[in-house]
Amino acid sequence: MNTMISEEIKTTKGTIVSPKGFLAQGIHSGVKKAKLDLSLIYSKKTALCSAVYTTNIVKAPPLLWCESLTKNNNKIQAIVVNSGNANSCTGDRGYKDAVLMAQTAAECLNIEKESVMVTSTGVIGVYLPMENIVSGIKKLVPTLADTEEAGINCATGILTTDTFLKSITVEFEINGTPVKISGIAKGSGMIHPNMATMLNFITTDANIEKELLDKAFKSNISDTFNMITVDGETSTNDMAVILANGCANNPIINKEDENYEKFKKALHIVTEELAKDIVKDGEGASKFLECKINGAKTKDDAKILIKAILNSNLVKTAFFGQDANWGRVISAMGASGVKFNPDKVDIKFKSKTGEIELYKKGKPLNFDEEFAIDVLKEREIQILVEMKEGVAEATGWGCDLSYDYVKINAEYRS
Amino acid sequence: MNTMISEEIKTTKGTIVSPKGFLAQGIHSGVKKAKLDLSLIYSKKTALCSAVYTTNIVKAPPLLWCESLTKNNNKIQAIVVNSGNANSCTGDRGYKDAVLMAQTAAECLNIEKESVMVTSTGVIGVYLPMENIVSGIKKLVPTLADTEEAGINCATGILTTDTFLKSITVEFEINGTPVKISGIAKGSGMIHPNMATMLNFITTDANIEKELLDKAFKSNISDTFNMITVDGETSTNDMAVILANGCANNPIINKEDENYEKFKKALHIVTEELAKDIVKDGEGASKFLECKINGAKTKDDAKILIKAILNSNLVKTAFFGQDANWGRVISAMGASGVKFNPDKVDIKFKSKTGEIELYKKGKPLNFDEEFAIDVLKEREIQILVEMKEGVAEATGWGCDLSYDYVKINAEYRS
Repeated sequence: MNTMISEEIKTTKGTIVSPKGFLAQGIHSGVKKAKLDLSLIYSKKTALCSAVYTTNIVKAPPLLWCESLTKNNNKIQAIVVNSGNANSCTGDRGYKDAVLMAQTAAECLNIEKESVMVTSTGVIGVYLPMENIVSGIKKLVPTLADTEEAGINCATGILTTDTFLKSITVEFEINGTPVKISGIAKGSGMIHPNMATMLNFITTDANIEKELLDKAFKSNISDTFNMITVDGETSTNDMAVILANGCANNPIINKEDENYEKFKKALHIVTEELAKDIVKDGEGASKFLECKINGAKTKDDAKILIKAILNSNLVKTAFFGQDANWGRVISAMGASGVKFNPDKVDIKFKSKTGEIELYKKGKPLNFDEEFAIDVLKEREIQILVEMKEGVAEATGWGCDLSYDYVKINAEYRS
Repeated sequence: MNTMISEEIKTTKGTIVSPKGFLAQGIHSGVKKAKLDLSLIYSKKTALCSAVYTTNIVKAPPLLWCESLTKNNNKIQAIVVNSGNANSCTGDRGYKDAVLMAQTAAECLNIEKESVMVTSTGVIGVYLPMENIVSGIKKLVPTLADTEEAGINCATGILTTDTFLKSITVEFEINGTPVKISGIAKGSGMIHPNMATMLNFITTDANIEKELLDKAFKSNISDTFNMITVDGETSTNDMAVILANGCANNPIINKEDENYEKFKKALHIVTEELAKDIVKDGEGASKFLECKINGAKTKDDAKILIKAILNSNLVKTAFFGQDANWGRVISAMGASGVKFNPDKVDIKFKSKTGEIELYKKGKPLNFDEEFAIDVLKEREIQILVEMKEGVAEATGWGCDLSYDYVKINAEYRS
């Protein structure tokens, strides 16, 4: 069931252990009542690591541990993740717990604890049940495997209120050598530009220099994970990380040539797909919104405008209500802080049913309300804005605001 | 039914026409199906005017008209307001309609159109039904009165999705001469710091210099109307305005003496009360939240933190769910952009039932969950945060996010 993305990069059936040299697993340790809640990704060889962390200044203890590793450019061999409890706002005791998670995994795997990243996601401000976690890690490590089942368990163990598993694998060749990149994600709620609440773990067997790995990863993130929003919140915990273990044995990617571009493009497919999946699974979301701004003065302007539109509760509730309320779009743009001339703006909404022109050169257009309802009935809708201020453009993704968002978040802790 | 606010300033039964020299009225003109939708405030003498407008760069045509008047320090004699249609994003035709509203009122009142402010609130992007508006103004002017009924009609005609009328009158003496200030407001939804979607009209018969009127009004607004939020949105239309016609004939307030301080304090009571009423009537709100930050480095820091907390959908849904989820409060603070040490922060929630300490010096506290539910069952709740970074403090007001917010805004246009 391979799908051609381009001549050279294919999405393929696979899991986080599809790239060579990776093992994984996910089990139930007892943080949650019954669901899988503890996952581990392991690389047989130490791997290069790029990571991006939340911009929230209240950072959870496990993130502080991970940052200390990546700041020192440590090679990484394992990532331990628990769901159900974020180990956040838990002070010194929380930090000791995070280190104990790394240490326990390191002992079981017979590696240095400084090569073990630790991540937690779930409720804030409750100490981790360390007995469950420690015995869970000891139980998990012997079951690490490179099977599809192990990969799926691992992807499942990182989820919280997610309603579906998020995973993608792509393959391509570097000078005739097959290389794979695979990613899994946890999203749902509290998703916002600037590396907000989500976990993204990406594995690749590509042989690539650290500097180029960093460059490719960070540029992809700014156009994918940082261009999605569910509710404008940034969490204390979340991060995106890629491990590259070189096990594909391709000729090393060490300059910005066509091999680097191919790697970057393949990685972009992975990060964009995971980013979109996170939004599609936004808490209570009934609509998937893609917002494209064209003709902006700068790309930054375009991105700020997109976030203002997609974070507006009034825009989001209008789409939930299937109402072609373009006035809320232009109003959100006007409040964004970006300078532009409203009298030049065009706004259209589009879905697979068709396109509705709503606003042209600062003037409302008459449109067929019945057709508009048909267009907005679809689950996937595009908001298309033409600024006529310049040539910059950007795209971002968001979702509507529904009764279920309120329900999920009013009842989450209990 | 007078209530003593302090020895010198009393809230009193009254309406927008309680200060001397003002007349008002509100009628049904046909913009809305049946409810009152057209109001007018008139001062027998031209009045000094201070006004603050939305920060949204997409400004509705009537606001552009008003700004042109106040920029030139025009004296104002009338304010015409329609509800049900915002005359926003309506381009040149919208501007001509706004001017025609001013002109029609001016002709009926036999005054200059440059002394007539015009305001509209309601749906965006639809041209005004000018036939109804023009004949409405002609019908309204002969019925202008200084009766309680006229004042209530005027306050009612400016409302949109509001569920109650917002009005307050205070009285005090300047060197033995009685002076009154009265205000009415339209709020509900799209309320946000920076003079967002609300209309506030204040009348006073005080005799005061323009410069001091401006100073008192602007400083009050930054601590009242600009410290409330319902959904973080800023609209294209809204504004706060005060007319001072001097009809009380008090000795003029022309320096920052105790008379000025008394005037400022009285005005503060009016603006704070209207601001709180707007939040209490936030769309779908079931909780009224007062957030106090103490011990911040600067007042600006405190204000930014308050807005971050009160605009967080996760915080708002937690209060709707009566969940003592202080983790979302500290997380919202961490994402606000303000620099602080989370390890010094204390967080408490308080209502008339009692107080719960939740977080102290960066550590979660054990608390009685049943008592917490009792505390959070109340309609009015305080979020108390101690930063221990400095001595600055601020207070702001917001509301929860409920199913009804989604319902109201998903169905508003239809």
